[in-house]
Amino acid sequence: MSKYQTIKEQAYEANMQLPQLNLVLFTFGNVSAADRDQGVFAIKPSGVPYEQLSVEKMVIVDFDGHTVEGSLRPSSDTQTHAVLYKNWADINGIVHTHSTYATAWAQAQTAIPIFGTTHADHLTVDIPCAPPMADEMIKGNYEYETGFQIINHFTELGLSHKEVEMILVGNHAPFTWGKTAEKAVYNSAVLEAVAQMALLTRQINPQAPKLKDSLIQKHFERKHGAGAYYGQE
Amino acid sequence: MSKYQTIKEQAYEANMQLPQLNLVLFTFGNVSAADRDQGVFAIKPSGVPYEQLSVEKMVIVDFDGHTVEGSLRPSSDTQTHAVLYKNWADINGIVHTHSTYATAWAQAQTAIPIFGTTHADHLTVDIPCAPPMADEMIKGNYEYETGFQIINHFTELGLSHKEVEMILVGNHAPFTWGKTAEKAVYNSAVLEAVAQMALLTRQINPQAPKLKDSLIQKHFERKHGAGAYYGQE
Amino acid sequence: MSKYQTIKEQAYEANMQLPQLNLVLFTFGNVSAADRDQGVFAIKPSGVPYEQLSVEKMVIVDFDGHTVEGSLRPSSDTQTHAVLYKNWADINGIVHTHSTYATAWAQAQTAIPIFGTTHADHLTVDIPCAPPMADEMIKGNYEYETGFQIINHFTELGLSHKEVEMILVGNHAPFTWGKTAEKAVYNSAVLEAVAQMALLTRQINPQAPKLKDSLIQKHFERKHGAGAYYGQE
Amino acid sequence: MSKYQTIKEQAYEANMQLPQLNLVLFTFGNVSAADRDQGVFAIKPSGVPYEQLSVEKMVIVDFDGHTVEGSLRPSSDTQTHAVLYKNWADINGIVHTHSTYATAWAQAQTAIPIFGTTHADHLTVDIPCAPPMADEMIKGNYEYETGFQIINHFTELGLSHKEVEMILVGNHAPFTWGKTAEKAVYNSAVLEAVAQMALLTRQINPQAPKLKDSLIQKHFERKHGAGAYYGQE
Repeated sequence: MSKYQTIKEQAYEANMQLPQLNLVLFTFGNVSAADRDQGVFAIKPSGVPYEQLSVEKMVIVDFDGHTVEGSLRPSSDTQTHAVLYKNWADINGIVHTHSTYATAWAQAQTAIPIFGTTHADHLTVDIPCAPPMADEMIKGNYEYETGFQIINHFTELGLSHKEVEMILVGNHAPFTWGKTAEKAVYNSAVLEAVAQMALLTRQINPQAPKLKDSLIQKHFERKHGAGAYYGQE
Repeated sequence: MSKYQTIKEQAYEANMQLPQLNLVLFTFGNVSAADRDQGVFAIKPSGVPYEQLSVEKMVIVDFDGHTVEGSLRPSSDTQTHAVLYKNWADINGIVHTHSTYATAWAQAQTAIPIFGTTHADHLTVDIPCAPPMADEMIKGNYEYETGFQIINHFTELGLSHKEVEMILVGNHAPFTWGKTAEKAVYNSAVLEAVAQMALLTRQINPQAPKLKDSLIQKHFERKHGAGAYYGQE
Repeated sequence: MSKYQTIKEQAYEANMQLPQLNLVLFTFGNVSAADRDQGVFAIKPSGVPYEQLSVEKMVIVDFDGHTVEGSLRPSSDTQTHAVLYKNWADINGIVHTHSTYATAWAQAQTAIPIFGTTHADHLTVDIPCAPPMADEMIKGNYEYETGFQIINHFTELGLSHKEVEMILVGNHAPFTWGKTAEKAVYNSAVLEAVAQMALLTRQINPQAPKLKDSLIQKHFERKHGAGAYYGQE
Repeated sequence: MSKYQTIKEQAYEANMQLPQLNLVLFTFGNVSAADRDQGVFAIKPSGVPYEQLSVEKMVIVDFDGHTVEGSLRPSSDTQTHAVLYKNWADINGIVHTHSTYATAWAQAQTAIPIFGTTHADHLTVDIPCAPPMADEMIKGNYEYETGFQIINHFTELGLSHKEVEMILVGNHAPFTWGKTAEKAVYNSAVLEAVAQMALLTRQINPQAPKLKDSLIQKHFERKHGAGAYYGQE
């Protein structure tokens, strides 16, 4: 048995959640799960249909993006995952999808306004949308640069990747992450639901105001931080 | 066997209806069922996924919001349920969801206009939307105050909670209730359908007029009151 | 065995198609199937959930709206069915739903423009929308008058119920019919699909022109009339 | 066993994918699979419900549109398929659907703008929309002329059917094709997803710019051409 068996299983289970949550069409998505001790992550092989996936087919890659184990080519987005793992030491799962509503906001190059408590239960700011990348980044090592586009946009906005676990990449699609691959998948589903509700909100009321600070703080703190009282822990 | 077995079963069955009716994502919803004789209600435990729910996991809480039986923490919205049960003596079921279309209207801070007979079959007025709460209410006992925000808005509009069994809480999401938990769930599904059709109606015709009084009365009376002739009773 | 067994089976099967085609929520719809020789129709009992329906529960009603066989109360819309059967001798099936998009057009009091060949495959004109009924009709025998509202609108527009097998009743919802109950259900599903596509068409292009006459005639004649060449008959 | 067994099986399997991918209502779609060596294609019989389809019911037709084998009448769109196969020698599968969002763009007579990488992963230009056909073409051999309407629009725009494997026919609906019937079905599903996301993108941002050239080239080349690195081949 592979010494990477645990993350291969985690990555497999998390990848299989994507079609169940209606977050992917065909192979338009991928999840990875990292093992910090061994300095590697397990990721979906490129272009393999979900119904043909198995634990064994997961590819092991190090944080510089080099394949360590596995006979299949890893996801074409592997370098983006590697850059994020290398730079953000406390995340252990990353998801990329082209889910319908989140991708529409990305294509519209528009951050998703914080309109309600469903949003505030998960983050206290608009869901950021990184601008499309510069031509030289695109023509260079595109997926590698995509990772830095994400990191740089967080830096510019002064956001913490521990507090905001999702981003839209302009003209492209969403990325989410978390302490586990499972949490990163959860974040992708939340993002898609929030993205749909935000569009509907503006269709009902084009002048809909954003959520006020007191509600943002209250809802976020219900689920996060020292005073959290949501859930069983 | 618990002396609260009946309401635990009712609450469990009603909670399990939410994902089947596509009214919740993950754990974003909860149902309670009250026993007026014993002065308590059974409610979903906080943050427990629906697939892991069981009758035994339901938490028993009194109308002051104190846990009476159960090892798990009750829903974070428990105080809202308690306030509504305490103040509205004739309801025995309450549902809270973040269902997509109803939540969008809540985020838009807009009451849902009565555009058709589907709406009038269930209530004779616009579906009310309480304004976002005052900061001091939010920073205080938030979920407890949410109950009063609902009750106060009904008082301001002169509405009866026996005739109007649903409300949107501005920036947040819907609450519904009824004589049973099952009826409260039914109301949540009706609200979501009416919310979607109202948005579509305005997209087709931004000047769509509201339903006229004669149709409102006719449809409501078909299903309610002494002359009702819908159904088998 | 009832001498109405055949239409009871037809009505049962056709009613059960509604939830499968996502045309109804709860009990918001009904189908009937007529037997012209015996001068009666079988219809869904009022307010009975689809999962509790059976062939035996179908109610037999004559064309004056009187129950002939069955222990349950027939659909509250029974008088509308009776009027249509009595006045339109060549239809043997009627469906009423509150399907989402068709109902939104009815609430918007707007006929559905003929924008494409999917529409023209089934009828050559806009899908008509009868105006809301006059107050005296509503306060009188409402469901009976609904039947005449439909018939009168067809007369006003000079439409044939043999060529146009569907209508929206303003502020209310759609009715469809056909030579069989099965065909009437088919028409309800087609109406819902056409209603959705028409709304989307106008969202993409608010100035979208209607289909031109040559295409309307061509597509309708592919499926209907002496020169039809669609299908196997 | 028929000497056309292979393409009959391919056509059957590909047709059965359409309802699974939610691309058809009832019989509103058809797929064919060609055998270039034998100069024929297998296509769905006209008007037969998907649940009644079988490999044996597929109809074999030559590239002039004459039935070669099969007791059922072929799809009413057969002449369109024949024209495309005859003129475009390197395609072996064709799909026609009335899928919701793609058909709405066709009805709006609007090409689908290239707004994001999901689009660019599959083609580098707007998804073309052929204008409605001239009256004399419609009144003549309509389906045959539809094939030329498609081919002529590609010629006018200077597009290659090898690089752009999909088109909208104005007022009608989409056609897609590919090296295999399976690929053509894949393209139909991609088209529907891209069509939905493009509409949503413009609803969020009516001034949304198209994808810039560098991103278009990068994404297309990831999946196509000599330097492709998506997938396992």
